[in-house]
Amino acid sequence: MGSKPTNNPENDLVKYTLFLADSSLVMGHRLSEWTGHGPMLEQDIAISNIALDLIGQARNFYQYAAEIINQIDPGKIITEDDLAYLRDANEFKNLLITELPNGDWAKTIGKIFFFSLWQIFFYQQLILSSDKQLSAIAEKSLKEVTYHQKWSSEWVIRLGDGTEGSKKRMQNAIDELWPYTGEMFAGADFETNQQKSLCINVTNIKSNWMDKVQKVLEEATLSFPSENAWMHGGGKKGIHTEHLGFILAEMQFLQRAYPGLEW
Amino acid sequence: MGSKPTNNPENDLVKYTLFLADSSLVMGHRLSEWTGHGPMLEQDIAISNIALDLIGQARNFYQYAAEIINQIDPGKIITEDDLAYLRDANEFKNLLITELPNGDWAKTIGKIFFFSLWQIFFYQQLILSSDKQLSAIAEKSLKEVTYHQKWSSEWVIRLGDGTEGSKKRMQNAIDELWPYTGEMFAGADFETNQQKSLCINVTNIKSNWMDKVQKVLEEATLSFPSENAWMHGGGKKGIHTEHLGFILAEMQFLQRAYPGLEW
Repeated sequence: MGSKPTNNPENDLVKYTLFLADSSLVMGHRLSEWTGHGPMLEQDIAISNIALDLIGQARNFYQYAAEIINQIDPGKIITEDDLAYLRDANEFKNLLITELPNGDWAKTIGKIFFFSLWQIFFYQQLILSSDKQLSAIAEKSLKEVTYHQKWSSEWVIRLGDGTEGSKKRMQNAIDELWPYTGEMFAGADFETNQQKSLCINVTNIKSNWMDKVQKVLEEATLSFPSENAWMHGGGKKGIHTEHLGFILAEMQFLQRAYPGLEW
Repeated sequence: MGSKPTNNPENDLVKYTLFLADSSLVMGHRLSEWTGHGPMLEQDIAISNIALDLIGQARNFYQYAAEIINQIDPGKIITEDDLAYLRDANEFKNLLITELPNGDWAKTIGKIFFFSLWQIFFYQQLILSSDKQLSAIAEKSLKEVTYHQKWSSEWVIRLGDGTEGSKKRMQNAIDELWPYTGEMFAGADFETNQQKSLCINVTNIKSNWMDKVQKVLEEATLSFPSENAWMHGGGKKGIHTEHLGFILAEMQFLQRAYPGLEW
C-alpha cells in the first residue's frame, strides 16, 4: 500500500473526472493485451495505438482530478499515479463494458465500437462545457476517438457483412455486449449535478448513439438488439465484475510492491 | 501450422531485411509487456510508444522482405504476417539482446539505450545506401530511434547519477547486458555481402557507438564495462536463448491456431 492518502474527497467533480479517467484507463489497459498478439501486424498496431490514446486520455483526467483534490485539501500531494495505481476496485468508477475480457476479435471490435461512439457524443458536449480543463481534454480526445469509431465501425461492417462465420461472431459480440451499454446513459448520483453544471444532455447523447448504432448495424446486415433488454449497472458506483480485480492486481503490482518508487 | 510455404529463399538481402525486421519485432514485443504495467503512467505511455514504433519498423521491413521473396519466386504469395507469425525460432535472426527479459526498469532502460544507439548509427548509414526501400525505411525510423535514444540515455543518467540504489541497479543492468552488445558489430555470413553493397561500415558504427556509450556512462557516473569481455552471439544465425521460444509461442498463437484467418 502506498504511504499517501488516496481517499477521494466527497467532491462530485472529482468523482466525475475519475469516472472518465478510470473508464479510459481500464479500456486502454484491456486493449493493450492485444499488443504483440493481434492476428495481423497492421491491426495489432492499430489496436495498440487505440490503447495508447485511451491511456493518454486517462492520464489527462487523472492529472486534473489530482489537481482538484490537492486544491481542496492543500495538505494532500496526490499525483496522477496515486489515483491510477493505489485505488482499490471498489473505488474505481469505470463503465463495466471497459473491464470485460477482450474475447475474440469481434468482441474487441464491438467493445471499441460501442465505447468510442459514446465517447464521441459525450466529448462533443464536454467541449462546450464551462470547465476549461475538461473542455480541453475533450477536444484533444475527440480527434482520437473519432478515429477509433471510424476504424471499429468499418470492422463491424466488414465482419457483419462478411462470411457466415464472421457474421455470427459479430452478432454474438453485439448481443453479448448490449446489456453493458445502458450504463453509459444511466446517471450515477455524482453525475446528476455535474451534468447540469457542465451542460451535458444525456438524452441527446443516447439518441445520437442509438441512431448511429442502428445505421452501422444495418449496413453490417446485423440485427439490432432489443432496446428493452435488461441492463447491467454498478460500475460508476464501484460495483464491478470479478474481472476488474485481476486487471488492477496486474496493473498496480509495481506501485503497490514498491510504494513511492524512486527510480 | 500455416498452409503457406514460409521457407526463406537463400537470398542475402532477404536474410538481411529479416534480421532487421526480427530485431525490431522482438524488441517491440518485449517492451509492449510494460504497457499497463509501468511504474508511472507517463513512462508507461513513453515505453508503449517506443514499442509501437519498433513494431511499425518491423512491419515495414517484413513488407519489403515479402516483396523480394514474391519477386524471386512468383509462385509464392508470402505476406508480412506470414513472416512475422509463421516462422520458427531457428529462422528468427534477431539480436539476442532484444529477446532478453525486460527485468527491472533499469534493465529495460539499458536494453533500449544500447539497442537504439546501435539503430541510430546503423540507420544513418542505411539511409545513404542505394537500396531505395531500405533507405526510406531507415529515414522514417531514424526519427523514431533518435527519440528512443534520447529518452533512454536521460534515464541512464538519472538512474546512474541518482540514489545509491538506483545507481547499483543501473550498473548491474549495464554489466549484465554488455556481453550481448558485441553481436551488433559481428557480421553474420549473410551480412558481409550486404554491408558491401549497401555501403555499411560496421567499424565506423562501432566506434561511434562506443564513444557515445562512454560519454553517457561517464555523465551517469557509471563504470564502463571491459571492452574485452566475452560476447554472446548466434541470434543472427537462428541460435537463440530459451526466451525467444516463449515470446513466439505467445505472439504466434492466433495465426498458428487459425491459419489464414479470415476475419
